[in-house]
Amino acid sequence: MIRFDCDYLEGAHPRILDALVRTNFEQTPGYAVDHYCEEARALIKKECKAENADVHFIVGGTGTNTTVIAASLRPYQGVVCAVSGHINVHESGAIEGTGHKVISLPSDDGKLEADIFEEYCRNYWADGTHDHMVQPKMLYISQPTENGTLYKADEIKRLREICDRYSMYLYVDGARMGYGLMSEGNDVTLPFLSENCDVFYIGGTKVGALFGEALVIVNDELKKDFRYMQKRQCGMFAKGRLLGLQFLEMFKDGLYYEMGENGIKTAYRVRDAFKKAGFSFLCDSPTNQQFPVLPDTVLDILSEKFSWDYWCRVDDEHSCVRFCTSWATSEENVSALEKELEKFSVTRE
Amino acid sequence: MIRFDCDYLEGAHPRILDALVRTNFEQTPGYAVDHYCEEARALIKKECKAENADVHFIVGGTGTNTTVIAASLRPYQGVVCAVSGHINVHESGAIEGTGHKVISLPSDDGKLEADIFEEYCRNYWADGTHDHMVQPKMLYISQPTENGTLYKADEIKRLREICDRYSMYLYVDGARMGYGLMSEGNDVTLPFLSENCDVFYIGGTKVGALFGEALVIVNDELKKDFRYMQKRQCGMFAKGRLLGLQFLEMFKDGLYYEMGENGIKTAYRVRDAFKKAGFSFLCDSPTNQQFPVLPDTVLDILSEKFSWDYWCRVDDEHSCVRFCTSWATSEENVSALEKELEKFSVTRE
Amino acid sequence: MIRFDCDYLEGAHPRILDALVRTNFEQTPGYAVDHYCEEARALIKKECKAENADVHFIVGGTGTNTTVIAASLRPYQGVVCAVSGHINVHESGAIEGTGHKVISLPSDDGKLEADIFEEYCRNYWADGTHDHMVQPKMLYISQPTENGTLYKADEIKRLREICDRYSMYLYVDGARMGYGLMSEGNDVTLPFLSENCDVFYIGGTKVGALFGEALVIVNDELKKDFRYMQKRQCGMFAKGRLLGLQFLEMFKDGLYYEMGENGIKTAYRVRDAFKKAGFSFLCDSPTNQQFPVLPDTVLDILSEKFSWDYWCRVDDEHSCVRFCTSWATSEENVSALEKELEKFSVTRE
Amino acid sequence: MIRFDCDYLEGAHPRILDALVRTNFEQTPGYAVDHYCEEARALIKKECKAENADVHFIVGGTGTNTTVIAASLRPYQGVVCAVSGHINVHESGAIEGTGHKVISLPSDDGKLEADIFEEYCRNYWADGTHDHMVQPKMLYISQPTENGTLYKADEIKRLREICDRYSMYLYVDGARMGYGLMSEGNDVTLPFLSENCDVFYIGGTKVGALFGEALVIVNDELKKDFRYMQKRQCGMFAKGRLLGLQFLEMFKDGLYYEMGENGIKTAYRVRDAFKKAGFSFLCDSPTNQQFPVLPDTVLDILSEKFSWDYWCRVDDEHSCVRFCTSWATSEENVSALEKELEKFSVTRE
Repeated sequence: MIRFDCDYLEGAHPRILDALVRTNFEQTPGYAVDHYCEEARALIKKECKAENADVHFIVGGTGTNTTVIAASLRPYQGVVCAVSGHINVHESGAIEGTGHKVISLPSDDGKLEADIFEEYCRNYWADGTHDHMVQPKMLYISQPTENGTLYKADEIKRLREICDRYSMYLYVDGARMGYGLMSEGNDVTLPFLSENCDVFYIGGTKVGALFGEALVIVNDELKKDFRYMQKRQCGMFAKGRLLGLQFLEMFKDGLYYEMGENGIKTAYRVRDAFKKAGFSFLCDSPTNQQFPVLPDTVLDILSEKFSWDYWCRVDDEHSCVRFCTSWATSEENVSALEKELEKFSVTRE
Repeated sequence: MIRFDCDYLEGAHPRILDALVRTNFEQTPGYAVDHYCEEARALIKKECKAENADVHFIVGGTGTNTTVIAASLRPYQGVVCAVSGHINVHESGAIEGTGHKVISLPSDDGKLEADIFEEYCRNYWADGTHDHMVQPKMLYISQPTENGTLYKADEIKRLREICDRYSMYLYVDGARMGYGLMSEGNDVTLPFLSENCDVFYIGGTKVGALFGEALVIVNDELKKDFRYMQKRQCGMFAKGRLLGLQFLEMFKDGLYYEMGENGIKTAYRVRDAFKKAGFSFLCDSPTNQQFPVLPDTVLDILSEKFSWDYWCRVDDEHSCVRFCTSWATSEENVSALEKELEKFSVTRE
Repeated sequence: MIRFDCDYLEGAHPRILDALVRTNFEQTPGYAVDHYCEEARALIKKECKAENADVHFIVGGTGTNTTVIAASLRPYQGVVCAVSGHINVHESGAIEGTGHKVISLPSDDGKLEADIFEEYCRNYWADGTHDHMVQPKMLYISQPTENGTLYKADEIKRLREICDRYSMYLYVDGARMGYGLMSEGNDVTLPFLSENCDVFYIGGTKVGALFGEALVIVNDELKKDFRYMQKRQCGMFAKGRLLGLQFLEMFKDGLYYEMGENGIKTAYRVRDAFKKAGFSFLCDSPTNQQFPVLPDTVLDILSEKFSWDYWCRVDDEHSCVRFCTSWATSEENVSALEKELEKFSVTRE
Repeated sequence: MIRFDCDYLEGAHPRILDALVRTNFEQTPGYAVDHYCEEARALIKKECKAENADVHFIVGGTGTNTTVIAASLRPYQGVVCAVSGHINVHESGAIEGTGHKVISLPSDDGKLEADIFEEYCRNYWADGTHDHMVQPKMLYISQPTENGTLYKADEIKRLREICDRYSMYLYVDGARMGYGLMSEGNDVTLPFLSENCDVFYIGGTKVGALFGEALVIVNDELKKDFRYMQKRQCGMFAKGRLLGLQFLEMFKDGLYYEMGENGIKTAYRVRDAFKKAGFSFLCDSPTNQQFPVLPDTVLDILSEKFSWDYWCRVDDEHSCVRFCTSWATSEENVSALEKELEKFSVTRE
């Protein structure tokens, strides 16, 4: 079985495993105050051109989202996101578990349109009885989104302006940041995010680390006592140095980008193979998640050799599925898929 | 100024105040274990034909909703409601404050359509990755709804069936129950609710009590240790007898229905006056809340003598407003409004 | 049966009921923005010599404590109190329900000794691993305490200094404030509390109001968006004017103090009667709660005519019980108790 | 610097790293439904003689404790533990963060005495006003405790009986289980725990795994929907197979016990070296944490070559410190410490 289900099918990039093996018996203090963490923090701040930022390492996207949101908001404040946002759909109520409402706004492709966001804020603040309604205080977006789409720099700038107008924080979930950074046409860089967000994270779990995400807190208001929050939200990793070590390896000479690039290159081959075979897509994704719409009969045939993530039913005879590539996707696996898809291409002619 | 803003503009029905004055110096134990509460519970159970129900008294709708929901759900479970549901919009995140997601579904008129609810449940349980998504475990509806509309008995029966199919509880928020019960065409009675819901409440605050709601728990699964939850959610009233006493007065000889009837009769006069003056309505409401759509110029004129609740903007020149009657609305005040509206009627001819 | 169980056995002072009756049909907007609330706020601020304070009205002590604490603390911060503190023992986990730890310190008589508090703070901040331990950020004391004891002004000043040293808020629960203010030897006044606390409340429920407490927020840091918190914690009373009206009546010409005085005078007669009969006390209480230690045989005899609150077992043959007086305790009832106790006095000689 | 600060100073046992490297490019589905997890579950159930148990893998002790407690209790219920319990002191309020009170009882050595626990339960249920006080529903103990002490089998049986009498769950935190199992005189085995607890966990993080704990749920009542809770509490690890793989390696041929044994053997050498040098201990610990009481002058000298965890001040001139050994502690490091301590031995003679 060749799997395209998700981007956490394998372990970690061999260089990361090597680093773990190499340093295994070194003794370091726990809870991310060791020298590897310090070096990794310095590297990341440099990479983000954010010398004054605070950098924390957390295991997992849900834990990172939950800790950031619970640390940033007062109890009656909520976080706004696209209806498809990870925090709204796929975290089993972890955000609400910290007492905060997730305020979801309509979205077709995973991105939140500035106009929709602005209208929501305007209506909220126009209404005279604010204190009976959850106060929107943070905007959550994902880059790339859950649908594989990407915000352009000017779209983020526009969201930033609206956040400023309504005294809101802008938080960017970068679980798949590495793939976004290496996408064709992308103009959103780490320094751009440092300039335009209050807080964002650079995902490791889905981009070649064994596990771990690096949170970058730019806004001073959100820095105070963050480690307390991390411990309280069960996100303080005992052997913190394992996280620092991995990010050090990923950022010391560009490995993170290299891994992102593999995901993108292989994704484009997958995309092109489906296109060539005559299939359409749920949305146009420039990143490592591709969403072809396929006849159920085709899926039956493909399922003998390949696996993927079922996304949604399109009509009685068609489904949308997700094919996901990653840092680990091999040329052979993609070639095997291409070869298989060629069959359909021929039959359809 | 003659006010039609809401149904809690005045104090309480004089008979209720009389009862408070009459019994003022009697000594009773606290926390609703006194004889007045016992008598009121017996009366309400009889009225609901629910001899096995548990009846609790709580101050305020938000507190009642929060306590019921937090008592009924496990942490990863959520409560489904119409997007306009009170728990979704007007409780400042009180439900999320107890750790639970409010799952809102589309609705035009405040009612949740069975088809929409069913589709949501079917999709949820069809999806293979349940444990990443909040589990729907309770359906919340209001009777009447926040838009003044009413469910018919067969609509509730249909929702009940869907709840049964998906192992969900059905909870009915009856903040304005008294007005619903007395509406023209209504076929949903208290015994019907006892038969078809797991838990519901009969609102006092908005229907002539000084304050207080009577919660009726029909489903045995939801009864255990409810008083603990009530105390934990800050809803255990020290002088509990004040609540029992009021419900005793309201249900011993039909005062509750009488008060509901005054709200309905005066609401229909208000509705007819707007109709006669040629105005349309946001939706067709058979209860004590009426939602006329008015030119802003008309509102300017009306505002010299009357007040109401601003609902929403309809277009550049029209707004929807809420005119609310109640147990306390006087004939004179309605007549004054009728008289004022006649002017517009003439000008429009 | 003559009851001395607690100070919420009766309804409210007749003048308060009169005010409710007198104003019953006046129309006012909801949620405590009416003119009665405004007037009551002004009076209370004057009485407290705290012109810049914010005053809010909330129903019930547990709701007030919960809202204040949840509004003041960040999630990883806790509130310190004596082990016997109401928030630690008798609120069914309402504080923890908002996510905060109650940090309890030893106390014999309900008061927290400054030395014990200081040592706790010093140890906490001396320990190098703060971020693994809940950060103490608020001190909660009750005046009078749950054991009827009172802090002296200089004791509160000392606690204030420690709070300042460790950047903590000082919150005073005044559920029975009226009795404390009228106690012999008391030197803690409302203006003193305004000067020395960050936030405190003046209890109505137990001192003659039908229900309701007046919260006085002195520290600007704690004022922002408090109404949001109040709504979120289910403590926003719809007919807010009922609360304003009661406090207006209680503070416009000294009724609050008069009611407190009745509780104190009758308490001292109760105390003296027990003393004269030769009984000792759990602790020396200058307020309306008295804690005599009685042989169980005496309790058996007394229980034919009187009721009280059982407090704790002292030894195999003796129990401590609470006799509580209040604004409503009548001369006759106290005389009846005195007469009964005289019997024991004689037999013991 | 030779470190004895804690038992998470190094990475993982080389065999575990080997397993990670060996399987790195295998593709498996996420979230612990892969074949490694299945095999590890089967092994652990066999090892525990608990064929009907549910086994889940979670990262970190705080996350495990929080998820178990939040999954087991209703909102008004609390968890009882010794005052020194990890959940009471060192989790930054994570348990309270899920809304539950931690009810702490006195303890000298980290163990909770059955008599103290029983008295607490008896008093709680004797009191007539239960619904104002948090209901104790779970007992939390650690084996070994935070002070290195161990429960004997008959002590746990006695606690079990009390739990049964008061309808409480017994939960055992086994963060350092491996060291406890290999201690001299220990009679508490994994099958014994399966028979006598409702739920317990076998710690990996501190006993040679890179990270991860294996939770064993024995009581059917606690099994339902646990994965939902795990996700909601941010404890659902994406690459779940990493956890399964580690536990597979640790339990397939006794590696877990072997690693525990290294911690115990080296701990006894450390203990004996301090004893021989004439120093006393805070308490008698048969496990991998040793708590010598040392003159501050001795600490100054030792600190040139060694590090440890400062525990508490004993008097003006003495401190208690923790020396911790582990699966990774080398013979050389212990010899170096022995050699250093010999100096003091000589000087004291």
